[in-house]
Amino acid sequence: MDSKQFREAAVASIDEIVKYYDTIEERRVVSNVEPGYLRKLLPQEAPQKGESWADIQKDLESKILPGITHWQSPNFLAWFPSSSSFPAMLGEMYSAAFTGAAFNWICSPAVTELETIVLDWLAKAFGLPSCYLSTGPTNGGGVIHGTASEAIATMIVAARDKYLREATAHITDEEEREDAIAIRRSKLVALGSAATHTATKKGAQIAGVRFRAVPVHAADGYRMTGSELRRVILELRTKGLEPFFLTATLGTTDTCGIDDMEGIASVLGELAPEGPGEVWVHVDAAYAGASLICPEYQHLTKSFDRFHSFNTNLHKWLLVNFDCSTVWVRNRRHLTDALSVSLAILQNQHTDSGLVTDYRDWQIPFGRRFRSLKVWFVIRTYGIEGLRAHIRKHIKLAETFGELVKTRSDLFEIITGPRFALTVFKIVKKDATLEEQNELTKKVYNAIVEDGRIFLSSTVVGGVFAIRHNPATPMVEEHHVRKHFEVIVEVAEKTIAS
Amino acid sequence: MDSKQFREAAVASIDEIVKYYDTIEERRVVSNVEPGYLRKLLPQEAPQKGESWADIQKDLESKILPGITHWQSPNFLAWFPSSSSFPAMLGEMYSAAFTGAAFNWICSPAVTELETIVLDWLAKAFGLPSCYLSTGPTNGGGVIHGTASEAIATMIVAARDKYLREATAHITDEEEREDAIAIRRSKLVALGSAATHTATKKGAQIAGVRFRAVPVHAADGYRMTGSELRRVILELRTKGLEPFFLTATLGTTDTCGIDDMEGIASVLGELAPEGPGEVWVHVDAAYAGASLICPEYQHLTKSFDRFHSFNTNLHKWLLVNFDCSTVWVRNRRHLTDALSVSLAILQNQHTDSGLVTDYRDWQIPFGRRFRSLKVWFVIRTYGIEGLRAHIRKHIKLAETFGELVKTRSDLFEIITGPRFALTVFKIVKKDATLEEQNELTKKVYNAIVEDGRIFLSSTVVGGVFAIRHNPATPMVEEHHVRKHFEVIVEVAEKTIAS
Repeated sequence: MDSKQFREAAVASIDEIVKYYDTIEERRVVSNVEPGYLRKLLPQEAPQKGESWADIQKDLESKILPGITHWQSPNFLAWFPSSSSFPAMLGEMYSAAFTGAAFNWICSPAVTELETIVLDWLAKAFGLPSCYLSTGPTNGGGVIHGTASEAIATMIVAARDKYLREATAHITDEEEREDAIAIRRSKLVALGSAATHTATKKGAQIAGVRFRAVPVHAADGYRMTGSELRRVILELRTKGLEPFFLTATLGTTDTCGIDDMEGIASVLGELAPEGPGEVWVHVDAAYAGASLICPEYQHLTKSFDRFHSFNTNLHKWLLVNFDCSTVWVRNRRHLTDALSVSLAILQNQHTDSGLVTDYRDWQIPFGRRFRSLKVWFVIRTYGIEGLRAHIRKHIKLAETFGELVKTRSDLFEIITGPRFALTVFKIVKKDATLEEQNELTKKVYNAIVEDGRIFLSSTVVGGVFAIRHNPATPMVEEHHVRKHFEVIVEVAEKTIAS
Repeated sequence: MDSKQFREAAVASIDEIVKYYDTIEERRVVSNVEPGYLRKLLPQEAPQKGESWADIQKDLESKILPGITHWQSPNFLAWFPSSSSFPAMLGEMYSAAFTGAAFNWICSPAVTELETIVLDWLAKAFGLPSCYLSTGPTNGGGVIHGTASEAIATMIVAARDKYLREATAHITDEEEREDAIAIRRSKLVALGSAATHTATKKGAQIAGVRFRAVPVHAADGYRMTGSELRRVILELRTKGLEPFFLTATLGTTDTCGIDDMEGIASVLGELAPEGPGEVWVHVDAAYAGASLICPEYQHLTKSFDRFHSFNTNLHKWLLVNFDCSTVWVRNRRHLTDALSVSLAILQNQHTDSGLVTDYRDWQIPFGRRFRSLKVWFVIRTYGIEGLRAHIRKHIKLAETFGELVKTRSDLFEIITGPRFALTVFKIVKKDATLEEQNELTKKVYNAIVEDGRIFLSSTVVGGVFAIRHNPATPMVEEHHVRKHFEVIVEVAEKTIAS
């Protein structure tokens, strides 16, 4: 494919993509292919000879699209959104054109520098304390990771090594110190609430440390409280274990609950040992963190200056195509101490000078994509005002949905929300056991998914099977949300009657 | 930006990208901006109001491009290549259009299924043993990670947990078992040759295990031998430590050396304990693995059926834009056992049925991009024959370069290669100490980088400072390689004369 053929193919692809977006509502939102559908459609071996773009493009509609779930459809209400936008797509195009491994500054200075700049822009726009700025008082700064899971695993590794380094700093013999670290490591415990994303548990598995969940209770709105945290920490310490890391969640996966940040900060202050042993607090705001772009949510960052790191995924609710998880730390040295390794062929005067950032030492992967480009395009195209309008639209639409649900209290009961545009509800069944209620809600849920006009996800909250409605996709409008409600009512009534 | 504006912006961008590729040779290959250049050009805060695409695009040429190092330029000879291609860019465009988090099968069945299919295609095309096929005898299969570093870290985590699980399988009490695992973990050692990429050391840091380098020697061509491996393993075991993982390298970063695979397999067979304690062998072929597409290199996979996993980065030498590290395991259960965590909102009948693959459990990140699309486009556009021609072209060009270097034995001495298109050489300085020789080579190297017509990287091999020439970029031709040599001779002569 030469550049002339590429131009033709690319323009044809752009036309297809525009058509896809213009007509996305007409497609069944969730794919209904059977497992293994694609193997039947494709050859067993790679082709020996090259094929024309026309032949390849044809297969997209006939073979790939039936297996696509349309996350940008206004009828996609499942999990959390993974929003796209046109300027972000342009960013991906240019990023692909300028492709390189970008593992250090000289690989392409713009890749590093634009990332630092847009992350400082965002830290300010989110109202994060100045300790998270690259120019701030504590050598902080931001970096783009792929996903929140990656961010959390990285923070656990950094926190683990910081803790162990500090705890063994008094041992001078290197071998002895290595042994002490290994033994001490076996006692470490990472904490997160029972409602936090499994990313923390997985991160602990990756880092080779224990994980304990801090229980949450319906009475507290399923958020972690300072008192429960205190209980768990003291219990662990009694057993000789050492809690060293905590994920505080701003917007849990199930219900968009917010942990008691102030309570957490205060308990950790109270339980802080003299000498080493500080608990690293990471705030996981993967989805709900996007709301901080609006001043009315920025009071939520009040305690963050007492914490160590923060992440939110722009690819969820802030119009930057997947993947783009933005992460800030109060002290970047804790990342580079844990993750830096040197290699002779990477030597260059810029890194040696200490004037540049080599982001590979802030993350697990070695090479990096030029992801800040799409962030830059999105921020400039929408402006902070446009991004605020985007968030507020969904907050308002979810309120509308919540009101609609309440009009049918004979059919539905809201369990939580709307919180950050997420409403969690169940089907009402009078005089029934929890099991019977759960069975009915599950039946209705499955019937809605089967129906195919809208796609929701389910969850279990405090033992209650529940349906989640999150309309935070870019193209959704009020008439869509009213239609979602109609579909839910229609299917629920039909299911109950059957 | 509506879809009409997007179409205009995208077509304008495609035109810019085509022009960029058509004229890439005219640009200075390595950026020569000063650290911090971009902060001076951009505002301190994000814009409040949205801006037009025309304004944004303008800044690309004036602000971003000066900070880009042009990895696709035929004058880019540094590190290893990060090759792009037009079909891969189309893949990125569609992947961005179909954006979603794709953490399980139902998120978009095509994302999972196409990945399994193209990885089976490639496993066959590379001549990997059938244990690495998804349909093979050992429940193997392939997955796309971002980078080799990620792949290696993941394998270390999987190997660690497999080892510990097997070593503590006899303990029935859960708490007792957790304690035993923690103690045992503190003794684990991951191995790699002294010439392997730092990814293994970093992976060990992430997994919280020790790392030891197996020494390599000039006499063995800087490759790890079975006898050195035996010595290190026995020494570690004597100290009560437990080697559990080994990276065997096919194409080291410095010199493209190949570890003695047969020797490694044989020593590990010989030292295998009765009962649990098997060493997991991962083959890191990040760059050179691409050559396996050519039958003349496939004898290199001979011992792989005795190993556990293998990775090669299609984004290096196989025309798939960054990022795309393909990884195969002989038993996928070892990945899912280490990385799987369950979450109520992810429950779905497809995952429960066990018929589908949820790739999130094969990797560190939770969500996933649709990366198999660009792989599919590249394989179909070039065909296996086209990909072979691509590799063979570079092998031949490097041979030409090697011959040219030999014509000036008064100036240059080849240290290794050409191996997989990489030639490593130094400047000759008669009757000089190693230090003086190194100083001269370094001086010449710096002068070449400063000159700016070509961009190479340097390394240190067995104490010798050396220059690496790797012309494996897509658009390079013989006349470029002759020109590289001319530039090197010219600058070397000038530096020596000065």
